[in-house]
Amino acid sequence: MSRADIVFVGAGNLATNLAKALYRNGFHILQVYSRTELSARTLAKAVQADYTTQLHELYTGASLYIVSLTDSAFVELLPEITTGKEHALWVHTAGSISMSVWEGYAKRYGVLYPLQTFSKQREVDFRNIPLFIEAINREDAEYLKSLAAILSDKVYEAYSEQRKNLHLAAVFACNFVNHLYALSASLLEKHRLSFDVLLPLIDETARKVHEQPPKDAQTGPAVRYDKNVIDKHVSMLAGEPEVQEIYRLLSESIHKNNS
Amino acid sequence: MSRADIVFVGAGNLATNLAKALYRNGFHILQVYSRTELSARTLAKAVQADYTTQLHELYTGASLYIVSLTDSAFVELLPEITTGKEHALWVHTAGSISMSVWEGYAKRYGVLYPLQTFSKQREVDFRNIPLFIEAINREDAEYLKSLAAILSDKVYEAYSEQRKNLHLAAVFACNFVNHLYALSASLLEKHRLSFDVLLPLIDETARKVHEQPPKDAQTGPAVRYDKNVIDKHVSMLAGEPEVQEIYRLLSESIHKNNS
Repeated sequence: MSRADIVFVGAGNLATNLAKALYRNGFHILQVYSRTELSARTLAKAVQADYTTQLHELYTGASLYIVSLTDSAFVELLPEITTGKEHALWVHTAGSISMSVWEGYAKRYGVLYPLQTFSKQREVDFRNIPLFIEAINREDAEYLKSLAAILSDKVYEAYSEQRKNLHLAAVFACNFVNHLYALSASLLEKHRLSFDVLLPLIDETARKVHEQPPKDAQTGPAVRYDKNVIDKHVSMLAGEPEVQEIYRLLSESIHKNNS
Repeated sequence: MSRADIVFVGAGNLATNLAKALYRNGFHILQVYSRTELSARTLAKAVQADYTTQLHELYTGASLYIVSLTDSAFVELLPEITTGKEHALWVHTAGSISMSVWEGYAKRYGVLYPLQTFSKQREVDFRNIPLFIEAINREDAEYLKSLAAILSDKVYEAYSEQRKNLHLAAVFACNFVNHLYALSASLLEKHRLSFDVLLPLIDETARKVHEQPPKDAQTGPAVRYDKNVIDKHVSMLAGEPEVQEIYRLLSESIHKNNS
């Protein structure tokens, strides 16, 4: 396939990782836009592109525009972003936004959603990341699939409704999971214990669900319904009512789910 | 060190994994007790030991008794278990039970707590598992430490108060995390999507906290406080009020923790 000339609108965690992966695979990134100059400049430098902090300076001649903004910024800026470039191919990268958001703003449009958590300072291997594609016409869907296949071995088509559920599931399996790590780190810190001692447990918990459904892998006081231990834990958390409530709610949910 | 003759009281997930690890490392397991004959027999066979389902048949001549029962069963059976064997070394394996539980029932006692999640059907590598040791006298503490060091590279002494907090932190980082995996699996199942697509995300989420504190690794709508997405997700979960409540509570907690 021909390597498109790409403009990135957005230079956050996802945009940074995706732009770098495309660049490494021979795509030509023309320009990076971000409201924040440092973000725009940093990413632009990494992928040998120009940058701008002004939407009206967006290049008009690119064949593919990849928009990766927070949901609220995206919806607000959409009319301004697309003006004068309605004939290019437009994709956004958000799990939670329907493809139909483009209606009336572009003729050729779609979605390229990578199911992964990204940080700017951490490079991830795209080959293993599931990429979910959607486009309003078949030709562009096929084009996006072949582009995605250059980056990853796991390319799927998914409709907006499926993608929304993938994104919601990812919030549980990643964002909420990470927050539980953070809560346990802060518990340990209070007792001068190192978070590092939890890492083998964290790794094994993740590894287990490669082999068995998470429901079957469940262990601990809640699934045994060990009231003794549960009550002790609840009272240990008396000083932190919100964390205590999280403990209660998750324990009840485990018990219910497994009985 | 001399390889003790060991009796296991309990044949659950933890006992099974610990007994096998000791057996593989040259320890002699004399006998396995479990109320459930199948569990007792299965573990006994794997470690070439005798087995019993009757507490009054416990051998009296072992040098080390490892008790690995649910917390409630342990406290209930403790007087019967130790009778006539008060001079042996007794350890339990529970994160949540104080060492002092042994007071009045044994002279030499302690704790050997492996910080890991165990399943009977899944063998884990003990070398990487943190083992936390406590004993009422120095000599037995040293003995347990040298025994533990044969199994693992990560042996620590921890007082009961620390161990309780380790266990509580482990409930968050393992049991609750696994339940979030289960909730996301069930969300995906409802939309005929495979849980497998989440595995790269789950792995990366676990890997990230090897390199940065979980608080710094937090991503997603809650930490960005993207009200748009949060509200959409809450309404998608309208049919499952408990899961919806978990979503709300964890999102609020993330926002609070990071602002």
